[in-house]
Amino acid sequence: MKLSFEELKAELTRAFIALGFEQERAILCAHLFTQTTCDGVYSHGVNRFPRFVHSIKTGLVKVNSVPEKVSGFAALERWDGRQGPGNLNAFAAMSRAMNLSEQYGIGCVSLRNTNHWMRGGTYGWQAAEGGCIAICWTNTMPNLPPWGSTVPTVGNNPLIFAVPYNRGHVILDMAMSQFSYGALANYQQRNESLPVDGGFDDKGNLTRDPAAIELSKRPLPIGYWKGSGLAVILDMVAAILAMGNATHQLSGDVLQESALSQTFIAIRPRALGDDTQVEQILDGIIESLHRSPGDQTGSQARYPGERTLKIRQDNLSHGIPVSDEIWKKIQAVANAGNDA
Amino acid sequence: MKLSFEELKAELTRAFIALGFEQERAILCAHLFTQTTCDGVYSHGVNRFPRFVHSIKTGLVKVNSVPEKVSGFAALERWDGRQGPGNLNAFAAMSRAMNLSEQYGIGCVSLRNTNHWMRGGTYGWQAAEGGCIAICWTNTMPNLPPWGSTVPTVGNNPLIFAVPYNRGHVILDMAMSQFSYGALANYQQRNESLPVDGGFDDKGNLTRDPAAIELSKRPLPIGYWKGSGLAVILDMVAAILAMGNATHQLSGDVLQESALSQTFIAIRPRALGDDTQVEQILDGIIESLHRSPGDQTGSQARYPGERTLKIRQDNLSHGIPVSDEIWKKIQAVANAGNDA
Repeated sequence: MKLSFEELKAELTRAFIALGFEQERAILCAHLFTQTTCDGVYSHGVNRFPRFVHSIKTGLVKVNSVPEKVSGFAALERWDGRQGPGNLNAFAAMSRAMNLSEQYGIGCVSLRNTNHWMRGGTYGWQAAEGGCIAICWTNTMPNLPPWGSTVPTVGNNPLIFAVPYNRGHVILDMAMSQFSYGALANYQQRNESLPVDGGFDDKGNLTRDPAAIELSKRPLPIGYWKGSGLAVILDMVAAILAMGNATHQLSGDVLQESALSQTFIAIRPRALGDDTQVEQILDGIIESLHRSPGDQTGSQARYPGERTLKIRQDNLSHGIPVSDEIWKKIQAVANAGNDA
Repeated sequence: MKLSFEELKAELTRAFIALGFEQERAILCAHLFTQTTCDGVYSHGVNRFPRFVHSIKTGLVKVNSVPEKVSGFAALERWDGRQGPGNLNAFAAMSRAMNLSEQYGIGCVSLRNTNHWMRGGTYGWQAAEGGCIAICWTNTMPNLPPWGSTVPTVGNNPLIFAVPYNRGHVILDMAMSQFSYGALANYQQRNESLPVDGGFDDKGNLTRDPAAIELSKRPLPIGYWKGSGLAVILDMVAAILAMGNATHQLSGDVLQESALSQTFIAIRPRALGDDTQVEQILDGIIESLHRSPGDQTGSQARYPGERTLKIRQDNLSHGIPVSDEIWKKIQAVANAGNDA
């Protein structure tokens, strides 16, 4: 089925209120879920709703816990997420980093003891809409073998870069694995092989077969040794700034993943003036990219986030696709609240 | 031949003085070249000396130009490199970011109109030795086709992350191309194929043949579309913060590469206290990495910069390898100064 942004958001709001969220928090949580879904990242939007509900019911996520400041020194702050909902915690942390950047030009907030932030790009869009450049990342449970090892002992630690741009912000949202397990499952369902090597098979050979990678649990870091190194150092920075858990301290059970560490940096280019010139520089880079001759597959170079804008527009015009199964679950949770 | 750190640094200092550097600047420039060579990054150490001299003689690099502050707002500053030597400019910019982080917990310095910074990791080591986490990057001339295009219109824009660590700092220094042209040439010389796909051949097929990639000029971004996107957004942030050139505005001739834009971020974890705990967190991450079972090739997972420490120790103990050809060039430049 296809739903309007407001329909989906309203029903999610009802569901989150039924789950015990204070009203304002329920609305924001519903907004973030709806926005992610509208942007086409279904896996981290409504399709994640059942797991999110499960994490609330098992007590992993405490719906009304808000982050608490632990320590701070001018533009650098450390917060404790107190097991609150990962998306609301991350949104609050990026807000705070943006506030600090108003005062100092740049701000950095680290967050410990938080939960899965759903789509990392959300906090890039948030920053860009507020006129900020953002760099932020999270650690994750161990789900990626570091280069040189066969066992998933590092996280795929998604890294986000965001740049505010009048014609549609530029947002890079990338995990350190070439393909997520979700992406591998999608290729397998469609009976397709991966477009490039995505991991090792059980014999240690690089493969494009998604089933072989699910079996070996050896997805490939982007750029092999490079993405592996980046995953390690992102985990280090997140953990030491937040004085929180590193990946190796987190449960390897996806349903138990909790108490993560995250870093949020916001930079305010406007603090140095020259708004018009900033836009001209970005226009120039994007025009140059669009002029780059396409390859033999008929592809065209794009800037990060460019495709998201098209999907968003499409979903806003024609409705946001939500599976019947997920919609029924959202309604059931929302109505259970009414019965209670 | 093999030279001690002090022998190499002394002769390089003589050479830079002969090239017109003020004494203190000559000493620092020689130190950075020697350190990079001692760390095993020969391509960006003494082996780059001839090209560096060439760039001075053609006027691309102005040896005694120092960076000038253009504007600033608390912890965020913009500087103009005034075509000075890229390594001295970058060192000054990172120093300034570190100073800002003393005052604000975090500092960000952008630099425009600068030259090639040689080894990017240098500024990571610099920050870590001063107790700072660092994130810094540079844009480069167009040398990498963005994903979806056949023509090198983006830069390989090296990105550095650094974490101070008592047992040897953690430094990630990675370009956005899977292999540099220098690395491709090395494999070709040894008549070896690449360990993983490194680019496309002329027909648009992925290949491990370094010669085919040199011919097609289509090296591969790390993580395919991911590294391509990261290269684009790093260029954007560097250019808009510095109000400087983006990659597409730079010469595609490697001997004319100049007026680059760079970003330097320093974060001071000690501003929030808890030094001992920071070391414990890093110990835990590194021990976990070292416990990860090795793969079928007999490899072992390492943290970024771990190998550098071993090479450095080895070169300090047994001498730094310098080719006769390069050593003669350094001596010739140093002695030409005496003649002048």
